[in-house]
Amino acid sequence: MAVKSMNDLFMHTLKDIYYAEKQIHKSLPKMAKAAESPDLKKAIEKHRDETEQQIERLEQIFEGCGASPRASRCDAMDGILSEARETMDEVEDPRVCDAGIIASARTVEHYEIARYGALVAWADQLGMKDASKLLRETLDEKKKTDEALTQFACMSINRAAA
Amino acid sequence: MAVKSMNDLFMHTLKDIYYAEKQIHKSLPKMAKAAESPDLKKAIEKHRDETEQQIERLEQIFEGCGASPRASRCDAMDGILSEARETMDEVEDPRVCDAGIIASARTVEHYEIARYGALVAWADQLGMKDASKLLRETLDEKKKTDEALTQFACMSINRAAA
Repeated sequence: MAVKSMNDLFMHTLKDIYYAEKQIHKSLPKMAKAAESPDLKKAIEKHRDETEQQIERLEQIFEGCGASPRASRCDAMDGILSEARETMDEVEDPRVCDAGIIASARTVEHYEIARYGALVAWADQLGMKDASKLLRETLDEKKKTDEALTQFACMSINRAAA
Repeated sequence: MAVKSMNDLFMHTLKDIYYAEKQIHKSLPKMAKAAESPDLKKAIEKHRDETEQQIERLEQIFEGCGASPRASRCDAMDGILSEARETMDEVEDPRVCDAGIIASARTVEHYEIARYGALVAWADQLGMKDASKLLRETLDEKKKTDEALTQFACMSINRAAA
């Protein structure tokens, strides 16, 4: 890990979230395919484009720091995504599967909200204005995605109750 | 996994969060010991008592469902906590270490906010009023803990800047 300074902690967490974003980007097509609700399917596909932009922002930050983009394995995101895969592979009832997908997607977003929240605070502390701006844009998008997923969860519950 | 119904998904996630809470409870003394700031140390110790109550609530829900409390391994929480341990073991500068601890603790809380959020929604859908009430109490506590941690993050940044 070799973290001696706040700058090291920032770079370490940047590599962690870079890995996480790339794994999410890989997982989204399977999620979209598994989703039953056409709205949920469409939202996941749209989210994939957003994730591409978020990965590009991270690459800009690496470059701004004079470093090549490097991913560092993040066991937490691997765990969240393997749980999501398990749901998609094993749950047959499409309504139950959609509920599981929405919950996994919210878990992904919340993990990222916590990580990006820390990165924004540290970028401010370190006086990295450009990085802070880029990270904040992504953080705001994650919060909006979480809100949208919460609405999907309510809609899917109302559909089940109808 | 054997998830066929919403009830199965609820029980599966309940076992997952029961495991997560127990692992967190085990990890907190090490976090409190590693924290440099006396306020952060005290907050972590207080949080351990809260976690005990939250574990008891989960046990009440298992009992209300006529099931014995059972933990199901949660790779995501294992990943988050192993990242936290890595920070505590390897970061020597106490200010950097505190920043890492706060960030890890926020990640734990956000993971749980997403999971408890899903459990509350599913308990409502399944008409499990007692479970919903207990889960909501814990969810509110998690949100408050996240707010408190955000304040700690700001304070620690201001101290570093002073």
